[in-house]
Amino acid sequence: MLTRVRAYLSAERADAIIVPSNDPHFGEYVQKHFCIRALLSGFDGSAGTLVITLSEAALWTDSRYFIQAEEQLSGTGIHLMKMGVDGVPDIVSWLNERIDSGGTVLLDGALFSAAEYVSYRKSLNARVVGIADPFDTILPEREPLYFRPVILHEETYSGLSVTAKRKMIFAGDRTDLRICRILTRCDDIMWLCNIRGSDVDYNPVALSYALLFRDKILLFACKEAFEEPALKYLVSQQVEILPYNSFYDVCEKLASDDSIHFLSPASSTSMRLESIFADVKHFGYETRTEGEVAYRKSIKNSVELEGFRKANLLDGIAWCRILKYIEDNIASGTLNEHSIAQQLVAYRSASPDYSGESFEPIVAFNANAASAHYSAGSDEEAAVVTAQGFLLIDTGAHYPFGTTDTTRTIPLSELTSTQIADYTAVLKGMIELSMATFVKGTTGYQLDILARQPLISRGRLFFHGTGHGIGHYLCVHEGPQSIRMDRDSGVALLPGMVQSNEPALYIEGEYGIRTENVLVVEHFTENEFGTFYRFETLTLVPIATSCIDREQLGDKCVEWLNNYHKRVYKKIAPHLRDEEAIWLKNKCRPI
Amino acid sequence: MLTRVRAYLSAERADAIIVPSNDPHFGEYVQKHFCIRALLSGFDGSAGTLVITLSEAALWTDSRYFIQAEEQLSGTGIHLMKMGVDGVPDIVSWLNERIDSGGTVLLDGALFSAAEYVSYRKSLNARVVGIADPFDTILPEREPLYFRPVILHEETYSGLSVTAKRKMIFAGDRTDLRICRILTRCDDIMWLCNIRGSDVDYNPVALSYALLFRDKILLFACKEAFEEPALKYLVSQQVEILPYNSFYDVCEKLASDDSIHFLSPASSTSMRLESIFADVKHFGYETRTEGEVAYRKSIKNSVELEGFRKANLLDGIAWCRILKYIEDNIASGTLNEHSIAQQLVAYRSASPDYSGESFEPIVAFNANAASAHYSAGSDEEAAVVTAQGFLLIDTGAHYPFGTTDTTRTIPLSELTSTQIADYTAVLKGMIELSMATFVKGTTGYQLDILARQPLISRGRLFFHGTGHGIGHYLCVHEGPQSIRMDRDSGVALLPGMVQSNEPALYIEGEYGIRTENVLVVEHFTENEFGTFYRFETLTLVPIATSCIDREQLGDKCVEWLNNYHKRVYKKIAPHLRDEEAIWLKNKCRPI
Repeated sequence: MLTRVRAYLSAERADAIIVPSNDPHFGEYVQKHFCIRALLSGFDGSAGTLVITLSEAALWTDSRYFIQAEEQLSGTGIHLMKMGVDGVPDIVSWLNERIDSGGTVLLDGALFSAAEYVSYRKSLNARVVGIADPFDTILPEREPLYFRPVILHEETYSGLSVTAKRKMIFAGDRTDLRICRILTRCDDIMWLCNIRGSDVDYNPVALSYALLFRDKILLFACKEAFEEPALKYLVSQQVEILPYNSFYDVCEKLASDDSIHFLSPASSTSMRLESIFADVKHFGYETRTEGEVAYRKSIKNSVELEGFRKANLLDGIAWCRILKYIEDNIASGTLNEHSIAQQLVAYRSASPDYSGESFEPIVAFNANAASAHYSAGSDEEAAVVTAQGFLLIDTGAHYPFGTTDTTRTIPLSELTSTQIADYTAVLKGMIELSMATFVKGTTGYQLDILARQPLISRGRLFFHGTGHGIGHYLCVHEGPQSIRMDRDSGVALLPGMVQSNEPALYIEGEYGIRTENVLVVEHFTENEFGTFYRFETLTLVPIATSCIDREQLGDKCVEWLNNYHKRVYKKIAPHLRDEEAIWLKNKCRPI
Repeated sequence: MLTRVRAYLSAERADAIIVPSNDPHFGEYVQKHFCIRALLSGFDGSAGTLVITLSEAALWTDSRYFIQAEEQLSGTGIHLMKMGVDGVPDIVSWLNERIDSGGTVLLDGALFSAAEYVSYRKSLNARVVGIADPFDTILPEREPLYFRPVILHEETYSGLSVTAKRKMIFAGDRTDLRICRILTRCDDIMWLCNIRGSDVDYNPVALSYALLFRDKILLFACKEAFEEPALKYLVSQQVEILPYNSFYDVCEKLASDDSIHFLSPASSTSMRLESIFADVKHFGYETRTEGEVAYRKSIKNSVELEGFRKANLLDGIAWCRILKYIEDNIASGTLNEHSIAQQLVAYRSASPDYSGESFEPIVAFNANAASAHYSAGSDEEAAVVTAQGFLLIDTGAHYPFGTTDTTRTIPLSELTSTQIADYTAVLKGMIELSMATFVKGTTGYQLDILARQPLISRGRLFFHGTGHGIGHYLCVHEGPQSIRMDRDSGVALLPGMVQSNEPALYIEGEYGIRTENVLVVEHFTENEFGTFYRFETLTLVPIATSCIDREQLGDKCVEWLNNYHKRVYKKIAPHLRDEEAIWLKNKCRPI
């Protein structure tokens, strides 16, 4: 296949092509059709960039994938470039060593943000040329694009009509301007149009683009895939469906209409889009980096929040069953990481509303949990789980009324004092953040220290974010807000925003601990000092108490934990069988 | 005087002039010579901007000064513009209503930053013209500039020679470039040259500019004011003294030298300076907003830190005496806010090293303390202090080896449960921040929530910063680091940085509570998770414990407080008379 790519490069008088991992919608999951990098290289990890020149090829990936990439690239002639390792050049240096200013580097303009393109153009010696996806011809064996059924997301779930959402989104704009918002992120479009699909894994979205006007929406998608109720609803809401592939053509046509003011989110404007609007008088970025739609989507309404509560109740029931199941069967030697994940799915499936996992379940035993995103794909790969150390379970589910994301770390045996102190520090951080109060205008960046302080005071730290936004029967990782120490989203946490709270600790080769609840921002009080917010906890899953150092946790956190367990028991117990309820009562005993 | 200014405007064919409060060194205190706004308007508050047109005049100031400005402007014909009050136009709108694009607005280019100038130029309809200070001619009654003695700041205090500091400052620069750093902030120059002056109130600085090269320093100051040891030392350190007034001329001359790369801090480059270098090929801003000198100055070396510890010991002794004095005399009815401040100065003066107050002492009784910067200037103005409510004392001193800044709030009677809860919340915030641990790279913006959380959880808040940097026998308010919720300095807290920790609460018309210690960042630990820091507390003044809600404070904070008092007693008691030591022992009893 590389030979065919090189023949294409020669025909185009180009010297190299950069092939990234993402699709033109910049989502977390990508349909096989767009996985050209995996097809060409054999490396199918989620992150990696392939660069092919006329005589060489190299693949850049991060430390999570070093081992997998080494195996999968072996024999392909593609060099593995381990990002972050000393002496490994980045793509720009590598290309600059090989191709001078007379050369040409190609990239699919729809797969690179305008900012990335500018950065390549500035730093590469060669000329950078944006092209349209050339692989239908070069790689006829590529997977065809598919469009699965698109369903109506009833207003009883979404809480708002499409018309009402349109109004809300344009509420802050000048009414004398004809504004057109350009949408390329599928989850923004699903939320806006009250529809859901299943064109990629785990994220219930349909591949789509949209142009959003004050009075109508042009939706670019596969009309044939839409179920009848969705079609009827969209017509009633002034949504017109146009072919998925006609998006760029329609953009080009509309671009020449001087009366339209175009707005696109800075974070998801591709080079291809930007070049279409390059000479357009009234084209600009949205005030908010992620765009107004993503921002409105992040502030859940009361119907959506009720749905989240219901989803967490159903999920809490399934979680109680899996926790009890592990306890009952741990001694048997029959449990493995994969079978536990399967069993949890089985418990969840007992609810007719269960609509799939919200991400690949993580069940990780001891040292396996030290990789933050470890996941055993089969019984063969999976470690047998015995009564020894910690088991980390991080899973979530979709329900039409909400999405869940919960992590629990379960002690399977007596633990060392270090393990107890580490477990307690992670839990204390989770609780301190749960108890936080803050003034209007505060961002997650300012609160993050609350979750990390108990770990840092022990000279320990985790290197991922503390919290991500969570979609409403949409992407389990959603912006624009976040709770992180490494960058400030600049987005203040507002009532209705739902996000995870997941401090953690990973001791390489030994164990991983993570405790994750989901929080929604709620109003606390308003007075002469300002407007104050706090969090409501949505998750209803017991937290292991047998390995807590009570003194280290501290009175206030102990009080929080006891109240939390009281609430978990009260909400979940009525839905359990008697022996399950007795088990839960024991798990929820105050400490 | 306004008439003469208007005659000047007419002569210059200009329509207005903007007169700010600062001097060309952008420091906190301004010599009378530069107080043209006060001279012209009669309003002598520390913050205010006067705008004079051919027919009108108006003065903008903030809420701290509304009452004072109203009184002082009465009868002058100058309109008071209350900033932040609804309907009050800002300077730009006010000027735009009066002067159109044919008009001209003047401002002294040395008193406005380049950024402010650009902002005026963009938003004002009129042409904006930068001028040199015109008031020597217009206002012959203006106070003359004075230059007080400049003393050597011995290396036994500063810990580093000027030569060593020069080396340190250029350590990160390309050695093949001839770099010249432009310095206009007096405290940067005092630190760099190991000298001190007293040309303004409270900040021990001499009016000066400097041009800093790798191999020498051109110091623009009044040579006649330098004491002999200082002169001799500066010669030995390749510091050449040129006349204060020749600074801009020398800049202009050097600007034409193409071999020099000029660097100026973005935060203190005046419009006048920028215009001198406007066409210079090699002129740019320092990488750090406040400049490399301010950054290096903020990281105190071990000699400076030992000095800070000694200064806080001496100051702690004086504080113990004033606290005991108040306790002994409160019933007499003879104490007032001003007399207490005077008495504290008297106690401090007992040390031969005492070198003056580091800012105007704040002694504020009950409701007076609700204004964050209240200060009674005389016995007449001052409230009599009786055994009722709270007394807030915020003062600091200079010693040649360090500067102090301490606030204590003293309960003078039985307090209400609300007062106790408020006092405890402020103290808890101070302690939580004191106990903070953090990873390398963390800024004060990320830690601020720790100090505010106990107040916010009660729906209360204070509106100033939590912490400011503190100079070493220099400005008590020093950058570039800070601990604030409203803006991120972007400067990570590093070992050696000294800053205040002063959460507070102000209940208008009732009381103000502030508890302030000074902290220095120290190394905590380094391991596979990273490099971690924590704080050492420098302040050694007992904190009132009689009004603490022990349960609200929590075990960890109680433990911190008891350890703190143990240390205060151990350090201070040996320097006290017997009955004072007994008093202190009682104050430092564990709770």
